[in-house]
Amino acid sequence: MKDKLIEFVSIQLDKDLKEPLYVQLYEQIKLMIKQHLLSPGYKLPAVRNLAQNLQVNPSTVVNAYKELEKNGFIFSKRGSGSYVAEQVINTIDELEENNHIPIDLTDDLKILQGQKNVINMSTISLNPDMISIETFKQVVNKILERDKGYAFTYQDSQGYLPLRQSITQELAKKRINTTPEYIQIISGAQQGIDIVARAILKHGDIVFVENPTYPGAIAAFRSCGAKIIDIKLTKEGIDLVDLENKLRKFRPKLIYVMPNIQNPTGISYTKANCRRLMGLARFYNAYILEDDYISGLCYQEKSPIPLKAYDTDDRVIYIRSLSKIFMPGLRLAYLIMPQVLAQTLLNVKHISDIATSGLTQRVFDYYLREGLWQEHLNSIRSVYKTQFEFALRMAKKYLPKDIDYLKPQGGLSLWLNLPDRLNASEIIEKARNEGVIICDGAPFFVRNAPNKQIRLSFATLSLAEINTGIKIIQNITKD
Amino acid sequence: MKDKLIEFVSIQLDKDLKEPLYVQLYEQIKLMIKQHLLSPGYKLPAVRNLAQNLQVNPSTVVNAYKELEKNGFIFSKRGSGSYVAEQVINTIDELEENNHIPIDLTDDLKILQGQKNVINMSTISLNPDMISIETFKQVVNKILERDKGYAFTYQDSQGYLPLRQSITQELAKKRINTTPEYIQIISGAQQGIDIVARAILKHGDIVFVENPTYPGAIAAFRSCGAKIIDIKLTKEGIDLVDLENKLRKFRPKLIYVMPNIQNPTGISYTKANCRRLMGLARFYNAYILEDDYISGLCYQEKSPIPLKAYDTDDRVIYIRSLSKIFMPGLRLAYLIMPQVLAQTLLNVKHISDIATSGLTQRVFDYYLREGLWQEHLNSIRSVYKTQFEFALRMAKKYLPKDIDYLKPQGGLSLWLNLPDRLNASEIIEKARNEGVIICDGAPFFVRNAPNKQIRLSFATLSLAEINTGIKIIQNITKD
Repeated sequence: MKDKLIEFVSIQLDKDLKEPLYVQLYEQIKLMIKQHLLSPGYKLPAVRNLAQNLQVNPSTVVNAYKELEKNGFIFSKRGSGSYVAEQVINTIDELEENNHIPIDLTDDLKILQGQKNVINMSTISLNPDMISIETFKQVVNKILERDKGYAFTYQDSQGYLPLRQSITQELAKKRINTTPEYIQIISGAQQGIDIVARAILKHGDIVFVENPTYPGAIAAFRSCGAKIIDIKLTKEGIDLVDLENKLRKFRPKLIYVMPNIQNPTGISYTKANCRRLMGLARFYNAYILEDDYISGLCYQEKSPIPLKAYDTDDRVIYIRSLSKIFMPGLRLAYLIMPQVLAQTLLNVKHISDIATSGLTQRVFDYYLREGLWQEHLNSIRSVYKTQFEFALRMAKKYLPKDIDYLKPQGGLSLWLNLPDRLNASEIIEKARNEGVIICDGAPFFVRNAPNKQIRLSFATLSLAEINTGIKIIQNITKD
Repeated sequence: MKDKLIEFVSIQLDKDLKEPLYVQLYEQIKLMIKQHLLSPGYKLPAVRNLAQNLQVNPSTVVNAYKELEKNGFIFSKRGSGSYVAEQVINTIDELEENNHIPIDLTDDLKILQGQKNVINMSTISLNPDMISIETFKQVVNKILERDKGYAFTYQDSQGYLPLRQSITQELAKKRINTTPEYIQIISGAQQGIDIVARAILKHGDIVFVENPTYPGAIAAFRSCGAKIIDIKLTKEGIDLVDLENKLRKFRPKLIYVMPNIQNPTGISYTKANCRRLMGLARFYNAYILEDDYISGLCYQEKSPIPLKAYDTDDRVIYIRSLSKIFMPGLRLAYLIMPQVLAQTLLNVKHISDIATSGLTQRVFDYYLREGLWQEHLNSIRSVYKTQFEFALRMAKKYLPKDIDYLKPQGGLSLWLNLPDRLNASEIIEKARNEGVIICDGAPFFVRNAPNKQIRLSFATLSLAEINTGIKIIQNITKD
């Protein structure tokens, strides 16, 4: 029985590029391995099968596999096929969490406890000790008292109405006017991206993404067979020249952006950039998917305005997580649906999982209504602001001057651009030998990752650990 | 901007059938409206657009729309298009819950309180009063004490390992031997069906389903562009002659079945039927998706053996809900993955929503480990057994002899086959006028619903209400 090569459906090979096809294929499979889309022990498709799927000559696949084997990404068993190899570093490597990519922190803890000196600058998940268990307990108990068995019954597919009302009120503070009928409750931001992809993308449709961008979005778009085009970023936001050139050429169905504290770069779009982006999307008639990834952790006086607030003709689909910053494992987010897409999005949500946990929705509704959500966010923000500012000071003090980084308006990490003399993969390996785990920038690129970016996060670190970690990186990177 | 007509992608029109194409189209759109896949106010696609999508003559669509309008399913606004009409009965109609199709029970309660005498024989959701809130509270509090902030962190995409271990132990009791590495935790059974569909079905692939079957599965298969073929059921299980004839002809990729207390018919496959089904699947090389829908509510001495226990060559994907019977709104289920599909299923789960709520997983792990899950199930089962036997007695006593129904081994409903002299839609309407809500059988058919089936459920009723409800049906249906 031949299974659909779902992991490979959206590999894009372009004969017009200078790079030979087999190198393109090599790079893309390598990235899939690095992104853990293909795990150690995974059996790669037979050459003939993959070649047929990609409509290339079998020799292209043979050469790509050879290159992968030479570089240790795969191994072959005589007469049995090729398999993804265990990657060089194993237990510690599993700590590398690429943004949303989940790991079982209980397991991590065990590993960490066995390796006391590890400084994990890779994870951007919150330090679990910062969550107020007491408040949560009280809220759950109150909800159970109040709603009894109804807290466990099926929820409306669109979401618990009181929660949708609370969200609408929160949004008004961010200059977004909408009504509960256009709010769809979802089980985390990733589900939102997936639902949007399934609702509007056909096989072969084009999606624009920022370069670099969130790998979970790339995977969702690819699973619908979409072609992905990456758009450059500048310090002001999306590169408008690159965007307009490509809009003219490719006419995308969807543009996926994170305009506030972009992941992974930390860039925030200026107001002018937002307005221009909206104008271009209107002119070229594309939907925009705004992933308001982490704007709750902005450390500026004024909280950032979402792109959705600039949306005058209902073309921005806005996704925001309610749980991410302090209870990511609870999987609760929402999206604002353009009127014309509402019914389709509702249908896809229903097919996906019928509805999001009613109990979780009721709990978060209570958090929002009673001001507890904002209170938590404020307390977490003030802790992280200190860490953030400390991390920036340490970076300024210790990092070599030719390592370039932006000062983001918020978030939990710094995105470093390395000079010619340094390579990301080497630094990551050296740092690991010193007990510091760093996130590789490669998985955030749609293709041809330049091996010049790393992300330093401080989500679970003490100030002392930030200090030690950055000093170790100083030692490794100094001229 | 033209959106993909996702609701319509998998309409199947067959020129070889006697029925004209426009009638086929009429029937299928009617069903979608009845299944609430298209809601009141939904704007139907323009004639030209739908005709193009379905590759039929525009006049086929025009005639189907005319027929839909004549029968009150849609209405047209001059110069603006056609819209789905409010269905005849509204507030009460919303109570009609087709199996998994969710409704906000808090809202229902309000409606019910306003209409004291309504007897809802439609819902198969549990009576919320039967859930032990105290136990749940204690468990949540214990988990929060034990795991603290880790209860809120990202869970491994495959699921919380201790829970996968608990499930493996439960399965051994049902003669299924597997290991935690082949268990995938999912956010409810619907997500499982959807993930399986996305992992193995390509556009145009063929899926076999029982006739009638669960509408949520039909929707998931259709959303992948699969063609759906329905297989007859007998009182012993799947109709093996019909199955083999169609296997020979269509070579499906997947066969979707509910071998124990099938939904909606209540049929349970005999052992011989299970063995033969496995043999045929092996010979014709198809995967089987077993939806173990409600076997926990079997009232026989011996608990039913899943089809998966007969699976000698790893071709059955088994789905079971952990939350459905007593906390359906919490959305927790699992699937057993054939080895060859495991990696693909994991990838699709990750794209869908990264992971299922870690807190919910930890809570249910505790329920399983401490025997609380089994305890709850036992107590609920004994209550429902009484109701079930009472409903059967009342049905035998009051229903006309020409109404045919099976005595199922368990579950929460009876599936009635009406004689020629009666029509489902008429009975439903008359019953509604008397304050009794009945579930129409039509949405459970892939196409050409015969208008001869209704489902009577007693999930939320007292014995007195069961008595009254069945007597009212007696009055409506008597010769």
